[in-house]
Amino acid sequence: MTEQITLYTAKICPWAHRVELALQESKLDYSRFEIDLTNKPEWYAPKVNPASKVPAIAYGGPKVSPDAPVPESQKLAESYVLLEFIADLAPGLLPSDPVLRAKARFFIETATSKFTPGFAGSVLRGESPEPILTAIEAIQALLPAEGFAIGEWSIADAALTPFFARAEVALKHDAGAFDEGEGKKVYETLQSDPKYERFRKYFKALKERDSFKQTFDEEYIKSAYTKRSLETRAKKVSANA
Amino acid sequence: MTEQITLYTAKICPWAHRVELALQESKLDYSRFEIDLTNKPEWYAPKVNPASKVPAIAYGGPKVSPDAPVPESQKLAESYVLLEFIADLAPGLLPSDPVLRAKARFFIETATSKFTPGFAGSVLRGESPEPILTAIEAIQALLPAEGFAIGEWSIADAALTPFFARAEVALKHDAGAFDEGEGKKVYETLQSDPKYERFRKYFKALKERDSFKQTFDEEYIKSAYTKRSLETRAKKVSANA
Repeated sequence: MTEQITLYTAKICPWAHRVELALQESKLDYSRFEIDLTNKPEWYAPKVNPASKVPAIAYGGPKVSPDAPVPESQKLAESYVLLEFIADLAPGLLPSDPVLRAKARFFIETATSKFTPGFAGSVLRGESPEPILTAIEAIQALLPAEGFAIGEWSIADAALTPFFARAEVALKHDAGAFDEGEGKKVYETLQSDPKYERFRKYFKALKERDSFKQTFDEEYIKSAYTKRSLETRAKKVSANA
Repeated sequence: MTEQITLYTAKICPWAHRVELALQESKLDYSRFEIDLTNKPEWYAPKVNPASKVPAIAYGGPKVSPDAPVPESQKLAESYVLLEFIADLAPGLLPSDPVLRAKARFFIETATSKFTPGFAGSVLRGESPEPILTAIEAIQALLPAEGFAIGEWSIADAALTPFFARAEVALKHDAGAFDEGEGKKVYETLQSDPKYERFRKYFKALKERDSFKQTFDEEYIKSAYTKRSLETRAKKVSANA
């Protein structure tokens, strides 16, 4: 595989982070281009992704500057599609056994649909973060006794890690739209309650991977989430005044 | 591949129909077991699918009667996961080129999310069926000039056919929760407006495939939809009385 890969991404975005994790694990060469989601370049929607979202990949064609994409490259989008795409390009991100592949895909679909509503509800919209604990229990029930989502690391783990990591930052630093103090309470339960031991072990192993360390900027997320939580709470106060 | 495959399905369900289409196209041997969704067998959730939904597949293990599933078989669920599973088992349902595979997956994700809200909103919940036309325009824009979703037939086509076919039955026979007459109006627009010519050609080719003819029971769907539409409209009338 010598085709060029350009990833359009944004550090804040968990969906885009999925694809960065998979690319890091794949050892494929790629260029990374950060899209400012609050001020997207004019050329992004017409030349890369008509939906104007990250992540997107430009694949193949001549080597060009990422900010001057050309029609000769294939433009691909949607984080789940890109996870599978990278697994198709590089060995080792999905096993070859059809049953294990099905289990990886089932984990992605089920764990994502269990975790993201509680995450978005609390961190972005100011609901209680308690549903995060319920989701983690459900996800624990999908995990094997040892190892990652299907045993060996796979794109199933890449799909969830970005959400777990952002939820941790929001809870630990009380940096979500939820009420002050709510985040830390859930964080402490997650740290100490024996009920979540399997998840703690799994999440620790996810965070220890080089792919995670190279792609997650905790300070950046913390600062962005803190800023947003202060704004949201100020709005809540003025709405209740 | 000599592992046994048992499909748990229901003729009414478009998600389950996706998998029947893929299995028919795959030429794999399989047993089909109809689940009555209004009166599910007691063993279904504990022994096959804890989510108690169709479709599900029992794969491998000894040959047993479908109504007596055993722990030795792998139980797999979620229609999208099963489409990929069948494509992994049988050649020809997804091409080997990673870009084409990505395009098939993008089509499944995008076309499903465009079509199903308008379909469910009008046929099941009584909203106007007009959004079906908007969705079809968007789906046309994803289609290549000729052929199926990515050129050759693939699981991308299996994923959408069940929804197109059920929408057609509901519209043509005015058998949806939408207001009387609304269905036929949209159906006639779809039949005659030059704007939808690409879709008409695509849908005709989908319906001409043996896999479709062997798995779609139009009379059954028509009768079930008509019954449901009469009940829903009666409720609407009494709610407005």
